[in-house]
Order: sequence, then C-alpha cells, then structure tokens
Amino acid sequence: MVDVLDKRIQQIYEPVQGELDEVVEALRRLVSQTGPASEAGVLGHAMMSGGKKLRPVVTLLASQFHPHDRNLTITMATAVELLHIASLIHDDTVDESTIRRGRATVSSLWGGKVAVLLGDYVFATSATYVCDTGNVRVIRRFSGAIMELAKGELSEHFSTHDWHQTVADYEERIYNKTASLFSTASECGAVLSGVPEPDCHALKAYGYALGMAFQVMDDILDFQGTEAELGKPVGNDLLHGTLTLPALLFAQRYPTEPVVQRLKNGSRETEDLQQVVEMVRNSTVIDETLAFADRYRDQACGALHRFERNRARGSLEELADYTTSRRT
Amino acid sequence: MVDVLDKRIQQIYEPVQGELDEVVEALRRLVSQTGPASEAGVLGHAMMSGGKKLRPVVTLLASQFHPHDRNLTITMATAVELLHIASLIHDDTVDESTIRRGRATVSSLWGGKVAVLLGDYVFATSATYVCDTGNVRVIRRFSGAIMELAKGELSEHFSTHDWHQTVADYEERIYNKTASLFSTASECGAVLSGVPEPDCHALKAYGYALGMAFQVMDDILDFQGTEAELGKPVGNDLLHGTLTLPALLFAQRYPTEPVVQRLKNGSRETEDLQQVVEMVRNSTVIDETLAFADRYRDQACGALHRFERNRARGSLEELADYTTSRRT
Repeated sequence: MVDVLDKRIQQIYEPVQGELDEVVEALRRLVSQTGPASEAGVLGHAMMSGGKKLRPVVTLLASQFHPHDRNLTITMATAVELLHIASLIHDDTVDESTIRRGRATVSSLWGGKVAVLLGDYVFATSATYVCDTGNVRVIRRFSGAIMELAKGELSEHFSTHDWHQTVADYEERIYNKTASLFSTASECGAVLSGVPEPDCHALKAYGYALGMAFQVMDDILDFQGTEAELGKPVGNDLLHGTLTLPALLFAQRYPTEPVVQRLKNGSRETEDLQQVVEMVRNSTVIDETLAFADRYRDQACGALHRFERNRARGSLEELADYTTSRRT
Repeated sequence: MVDVLDKRIQQIYEPVQGELDEVVEALRRLVSQTGPASEAGVLGHAMMSGGKKLRPVVTLLASQFHPHDRNLTITMATAVELLHIASLIHDDTVDESTIRRGRATVSSLWGGKVAVLLGDYVFATSATYVCDTGNVRVIRRFSGAIMELAKGELSEHFSTHDWHQTVADYEERIYNKTASLFSTASECGAVLSGVPEPDCHALKAYGYALGMAFQVMDDILDFQGTEAELGKPVGNDLLHGTLTLPALLFAQRYPTEPVVQRLKNGSRETEDLQQVVEMVRNSTVIDETLAFADRYRDQACGALHRFERNRARGSLEELADYTTSRRT
C-alpha cells in the first residue's frame, strides 16, 4: 500500500518501519471492519490513497527516546494519520479538487455530500483512536490541533487577495494549517513515551519547526516546475488569490512595481496575477524563501541537540533536511 | 438569545434554567473571543441561531440526581450543544438548505467552503470543551457520538430509494443520526454528576429512547401540515428518496398497491413518490407511527422509575411527553 518511496525516505523511516507497518495495518483493519459495503468502499478509497505518512512517522520517531509501550504510540500515530486523511478529504471537497496523489478524490467520485460526511466520520474516528491512549493531555492537544487546522483553512479563505497581510500573518496561518499537526504529532509521541517534560518540549519544538519548513517548501514548489509536472497551473495558489510567502516577499521587495500597486489597490485580474507568478519565478525571491525554510530546518535540528545521538535523532535530522530539499 | 419558548417548555427547563443560561453565556463568550472579525462573524451567526437547546437541557437534568460540580456539567452541556450546532452546519451544507430556524444558513450566506470549515471548527471546539471535563470515559463516548452522527447521515444517503430496507434498518439509522447524541447527553450528565453505574445506565437508556421518539416524531411531522406551515413541501424526505418510518410502514401494510410495486421495482418518479405521500397522509399509518413514538416515550419514562420523584425526574418525564406531542 505504501507508495514507492525513494531510498532516502526508506532509510529515514528504518528505525520505526515495523511500527509504521502496524499503523498501515490498523488503517486497513478499520476499513474492513466498516459496514455496510457502500460506506466501506468510500472509506477504503480515502484511506488507501498512499502518501508518505510523514506525520505518523514523526510521532513514532519522537517516541524513541525512552522505553515505551509501542501499542500506545502506534495508536497515536494512527490517529495522527487519520486526522490528516480527514483534513485532505475536506480540503479536496472545498477546493473542488478532482485529483490527489494521482487518484480521483472522494468528492469527485461520490459527490460533495458524501465527502463532507466521510470527512466528519474520519475526524471522529481519529478522535476515538486518541481516546484509546487514555491520556487527557494528548487528547486535549489533539482536539486543539483539529481546531487550528480548521482555523488555518478559514483564515486562508478570508485573507485571499489581501495584499496588506504581513509575513507574520502568513506564519500564523501556516502554523494553524500545517505545523500544528506536525508539532502535535511529535509532542504526543514524546508524552506517551514517558520522557521528561523538557524533552517533550524540545520534540514539540522540533515538530513545529519541521511543519513550518514543510509548508514553506510546499509554497515554493507551487511556483516551480511546469504545469505538466505539477498537474496544476504554476502559481496555482496565487492565481486563486492565496498569498504565500514568495508572493508576500515579492510585494515587499518591489513595492513600486506597477503590478504590485494595482494588486494592492484591489485588482484581481488574472493577467496581473499571472505577471506576478512569472516575476516571482525569475526573481531572487525564491532563494529568499528557500533561506526561510532552511532557517526553520536549522531550528528543527537545533531542538534535538539535547538528545543522545541515536538512530531516531539521526532520522529526525535527516527528515528535516529531506523536507527542505524535496522536489515533490 | 433563546427563542420565545412556549410556557410548557419553560416549566420543563425550570430546574436547570440557571445552568442553561450559563451554557448560553459560554457560547456567547466563545464567539466574542474568536478573532479576526470575519471568522467571529460567521461563528456568531451559526451559534446564535436559537433553537430549543433540548440536548444540553437533557445533560443538565440528568446531572440533578446527585450533588455535583456544576462547572463540569455546564461544560459538558456546552459541548453537547456545540456538537449539535456543528452537525447542523454540515447538514445544511450537504442538503443545500437555505433556511434554518427562520434564518439564512451559513452555507447560503458564505458558501459551502466556509460552511464545511466552520463546521469542522465547531466540531473541534466541542471536543475541547469535553476535554475540559478531564473524564476519559465521557470524552470517548463523545467522539463515538460524532462517529455515529456521520455514520447515520452517510447511511441515510446510501439507502435513499431503497424500498427493501427494514424497520430495523431505519431504527439503526435514527439511533446513529439522532438518538446517539441524546443518549450521550444524558449519560455524560449522569457520569459527571457521580451517580452509581446503574443510574448512569438508566439515564443513558432514557436519552436513547427520548432521541428515538424525537426522530420518529420529526419524521411524522414531515408528512403533516401544509407546505406553508412547514416551509418546505409536505413529504419532503420521501420526495428526496429518504424513506422514514411512515413510508416503510405504508409499504409493509399495502404491498400489493401498484405504486408500492413500482417503487420496489426501482421507480424514482416524482409522481409515484407524491402519490405515496398523499396515501400516507390519508391512511392509518400515521397513527401507527405515532404509536411507535409513544412506545419510545413510555420506554424513556420507564427508565426513570428507579429515581426518587424530584423536580428533575418530573421534567425529564414531561420532556418525553412534550417530544411526542409537539407540533413543530
């Protein structure tokens, strides 16, 4: 079921591969235990869609710094992946996306109604897995993460075409929509493993910075490559009015550019947006944004300094590096 | 904020009116603490839509059989109402309803995207309130209820126009979509008040039977009155292919009717559906369905026999009676 992952990812995952296999098995079991057939069919489609399983891996790696009950951390990692799947189902529904990871989305196959309800079902299922940890702190963090996810998506919606937003606004938004779940993933893995509080704090900080780096890279990749490679138009976010870091940095660097002035004055013309996409691609702004991601990567690795140099630490460092060097 | 409720409801609510006011105040505070303004505006619209607040009242009344920490039960009742609000936001979105309780729905005012995300946000907010009770059993039951809610709505969708479904299928579906939350409301109120296990069990059974009676009545009301009174066509569910108890009982009683035969053979003709709506209205099937609701009402009241005759018990009995005699 796991997509063909490149060799580097395989090496990073190696210390927790056995536990990750059990997460995948738990997802499979969940589908096979769901009845009747129509519901199980939709659930199976949503669940077996592959993906890198980055978030559950973060939970599993973060639990490796202390002898622990692996059933607890596997349960937590399963909950984290379920929450991610639920959020993708709703994202694809509200964005009317037809393709995800090379496969048709739930909403394109069964319609928006089924997709909204299935997303709710998977959100709730993820919550029951977290409840199975029996740890109130972890359960509370998890529901906080669901709130932040929805808040991030809402604020992205309400801030489209708003050229007066700041880089700080952008950072708050990507914390909510992406880094919150990464930091929940690492913090909860740490808490359930039983490491002391300062270690939990450090691993939470790692997850936060990794998630921020991950989203900044995602926003860079949206400006790179060709339409054929991306499977969507280059600069797709900006063309829909979603202003990510490259666009915001561009507007900061070139405030007197006529196109920037027009957009700040409220233009939503596709031609203007397309012009900025081209200018961003040909400017130093992409490098500046990459430097931004690299700073978050360094922050992630810095949070790990207190830990002994074991395989889990090595994998977490590699993962941060992989995240900021990935091309997809 | 509470709509004008009739005198009978006021008397039923009387023993917990002070606590209910605090629930309403908690909802108001939640909106005022949400930022920025655009998000708070949508949330406020969804939250301040009135309604009878039946479910939180059930939680509060179920907690009155033991000295208890009222902050805990108010928090629980707030969570229950938030969960109900979240489910209404998603229901209205997937059903493309434009009006709810006489006001425009979130999806009709802000679009489906905002409505899906806001629903997610309110679901997650409800979960954080439950977490504030610190009681893992209650938290687990609550996430189970969210799963069952989504499952009930999904199975309603997948069973449209299925004339081979049984009354037992119908009962399972309305348990999931309605009675699960009522039984969660009463069970969690009881658990948090600290009554012994057999009392928790009895109050859970009360909530279950009340919820079943409530939904059966809802399904009867869909066949009664006029389009002007209902604000939607008479027999709206059936016209959309949703088969509720009156339709199923009708098909059982009159299996040889040509229209029943046509529908069982796959007809989805509006004319056929309209004919059944008229026939149901003019048959004894409505009375049979009412008798069904009355049996659930009696079951609800029967579950209360073990308790002393105090005001809370009186209100719970009255509530069951009100539910099966309501006309809206």
